[in-house]
Amino acid sequence: MRKVVLSLGISLDGYIARQDGAIDFLFMPRDFSMAPFLASIDTVIMGRKTFDAAVKLGGGPSMGPTTTSYVLSRSKPPGELDGVTFVNQSPATLIGQLRQRSGKDIWLMGGGELARDFLKADLVDEIHLGIVPVLLGDGIPLFPRGFAQLDFSLVENQAYSKGLVMLKYRRKRSYARKS
Amino acid sequence: MRKVVLSLGISLDGYIARQDGAIDFLFMPRDFSMAPFLASIDTVIMGRKTFDAAVKLGGGPSMGPTTTSYVLSRSKPPGELDGVTFVNQSPATLIGQLRQRSGKDIWLMGGGELARDFLKADLVDEIHLGIVPVLLGDGIPLFPRGFAQLDFSLVENQAYSKGLVMLKYRRKRSYARKS
Repeated sequence: MRKVVLSLGISLDGYIARQDGAIDFLFMPRDFSMAPFLASIDTVIMGRKTFDAAVKLGGGPSMGPTTTSYVLSRSKPPGELDGVTFVNQSPATLIGQLRQRSGKDIWLMGGGELARDFLKADLVDEIHLGIVPVLLGDGIPLFPRGFAQLDFSLVENQAYSKGLVMLKYRRKRSYARKS
Repeated sequence: MRKVVLSLGISLDGYIARQDGAIDFLFMPRDFSMAPFLASIDTVIMGRKTFDAAVKLGGGPSMGPTTTSYVLSRSKPPGELDGVTFVNQSPATLIGQLRQRSGKDIWLMGGGELARDFLKADLVDEIHLGIVPVLLGDGIPLFPRGFAQLDFSLVENQAYSKGLVMLKYRRKRSYARKS
């Protein structure tokens, strides 16, 4: 089944952006490639605020012709615009539809409010965190409070030369998936 | 110089306890010993709420006869009581006094509010995080918002068999310590 992967860079205190939306702290010298991860996905989902922030940063979030980008928005009219597809659906409905089609994994790109909606519905199969060695002291959290406990298993732990730590977790669901 | 080490177990979403103070989620099978760390410190500092929580859990926070425990409190009268020393000082004053004496490192045991006071005053030299593979969804944060950015260097990254990840960071201060 196509997995939903929440994959983001965060500060040591769990922020995906500064309070004003700036993500300058994420740009650190990296001695690894995003290419293997990008090759594993063909769908990107983000919230409207993250979309707006990406557009403001320039270029918008288009990931190329083989990747479909969805923006969940309650305010914008559904439909395609500028290479992304606006949808006004619940996360469960959207993921249900995407899983009826075959395809690669689905990158849940954020931000925190959308991540919470997905976590509330227990729709996140993997979490990939790139932990940057800085305390920001304030910002937009990846995990805003307000969902029920979810257990995970560590599947990968890798440190890079500039102090970035990549942690990958898989959702540990307590019910058996035998049926 | 004696280092101040903020060392705590946290959930994947950065909580040191559930909202009601429970720390059950921290008790996972561990295949490492706290002994080397405990041998490196001779002083423990905690906030009054953390002290109360430790007492409630039973036994109090006494670490044995060779360790001095300080509890920072604005409400309790200063002085020794039940094996701990209550002080009503700023973190900077207390650390200044402790550093006038020779000794081992100083364990800043929490909680989040006291950690923030120490981070505001840039008094934390190392951060040791034991990241437990669970999202709690709510709780008491290790890093409540409200201090200025602080950069760190990764000095250790170790995963344990049950998915606990121990990350150790050292404060990267931009000024030269030559004088």
